[in-house]
Amino acid sequence: MDIITITTNVIMNNMRITDEEREAVYKTIFSRRDVRKEFKPDRVSDEMLMRILTAAHHAPSVGFMQPWDFIVIRDNKIKKEIKAEFKHANAKAEKMFDGQKGEKYKSLKLEGIMEAPVGICVTCDRTRNGPVVLGRTSLPEMDLFSAVCAIQNMWLAARAENLGMGWVSIITNDALQAILGIPEHIVPIAYLCLGHVTQFHKKPELEEMGWLSREKLDELIHYERWGATTANRFNAENITI
Amino acid sequence: MDIITITTNVIMNNMRITDEEREAVYKTIFSRRDVRKEFKPDRVSDEMLMRILTAAHHAPSVGFMQPWDFIVIRDNKIKKEIKAEFKHANAKAEKMFDGQKGEKYKSLKLEGIMEAPVGICVTCDRTRNGPVVLGRTSLPEMDLFSAVCAIQNMWLAARAENLGMGWVSIITNDALQAILGIPEHIVPIAYLCLGHVTQFHKKPELEEMGWLSREKLDELIHYERWGATTANRFNAENITI
Repeated sequence: MDIITITTNVIMNNMRITDEEREAVYKTIFSRRDVRKEFKPDRVSDEMLMRILTAAHHAPSVGFMQPWDFIVIRDNKIKKEIKAEFKHANAKAEKMFDGQKGEKYKSLKLEGIMEAPVGICVTCDRTRNGPVVLGRTSLPEMDLFSAVCAIQNMWLAARAENLGMGWVSIITNDALQAILGIPEHIVPIAYLCLGHVTQFHKKPELEEMGWLSREKLDELIHYERWGATTANRFNAENITI
Repeated sequence: MDIITITTNVIMNNMRITDEEREAVYKTIFSRRDVRKEFKPDRVSDEMLMRILTAAHHAPSVGFMQPWDFIVIRDNKIKKEIKAEFKHANAKAEKMFDGQKGEKYKSLKLEGIMEAPVGICVTCDRTRNGPVVLGRTSLPEMDLFSAVCAIQNMWLAARAENLGMGWVSIITNDALQAILGIPEHIVPIAYLCLGHVTQFHKKPELEEMGWLSREKLDELIHYERWGATTANRFNAENITI
């Protein structure tokens, strides 16, 4: 389905989301993964890519600033340069984990730069639409956060296309800037790998491998003020009994 | 549908997303709005709220750090304090826009703090899961970005529930920290307003009102390196003819 038809439908028709549509959104959210190992070489069609970038472009942005740009990379020569910089940054990172954790770290595959047919660098133009931006007056980092919202839209759109995406954060902004010719006033936010996949993991890989466990949600929800979680309330009740 | 059934389905069943499901995701992405004016007083059910927070908790996070917490506010007394701090920050912001833009700024309603039945403050615990976090070694701000991914999941989950959400960014972190008793090492990322709505705008309000226009997507997509946009290519071709 072409993107113009979807957006037109949304604008013209009743905007109510049905129960089935809601479940589709949750299915997509809960089955989204950070993909590193499962990329297939199959070409990502221009139609898919454009739908995903259109989803990014419809993310919320502070003061409707839309500070994002997207550099689409298919050239292996450029990917090789990115990969070399990842290796450099990762060699440093390895040394920060001690003992068993360090051994485990070295065994992890943390990127699919060469395997993924498409790389996308998402950036933030901090000067876009003038020196003062509505909604950014108290929190100047709101523009960076807008670009991150665009990335999460891309991640879910990719998953909805049955494509995998991975965020390579073990690389410096200086390296991305130099390789991709990004001007100084533009901040790289993410280097993303995108492609068809052999499978999606049932759980996040780092959870599956026992790197860290999932936090208990009820310990993260506070009521009215910090500290009043259900867990704490329960404890408090126990104490009074 | 309860959240456990959805997540179990996702884990147990084939994870392929159908064409209909994909369209539901795009419909949700394209019809999501930053809501300020259209909140209804109707109670947001605990089931809806838990589904939205579960969606947040299944956002990607750097090294599976899950740095987020959620403070759920329904108490009007607390909302009043938040509103007062918004007013304070907004009075300062108003002065930053000159002339016509300043007049227009004053006419905008930029928050629904009192009207929305639920406020949610999303925070980031920068110390969670130890001093060194996988994937955060080159870019220490990755934890903040993870919390923003959680917020975008919430925004889409809320939209899928036919609820509106708005991000109040015209307030200082110091104010949120003081009012909500947030410890010093925890960073507030967003104060969100959530509730049922009378309607969703067909376009972003700031676009509808002519505050700013939507950027042309093809001018934001670069190929292989910064600067090689379709628009630029087209111009280059014109020059050679």
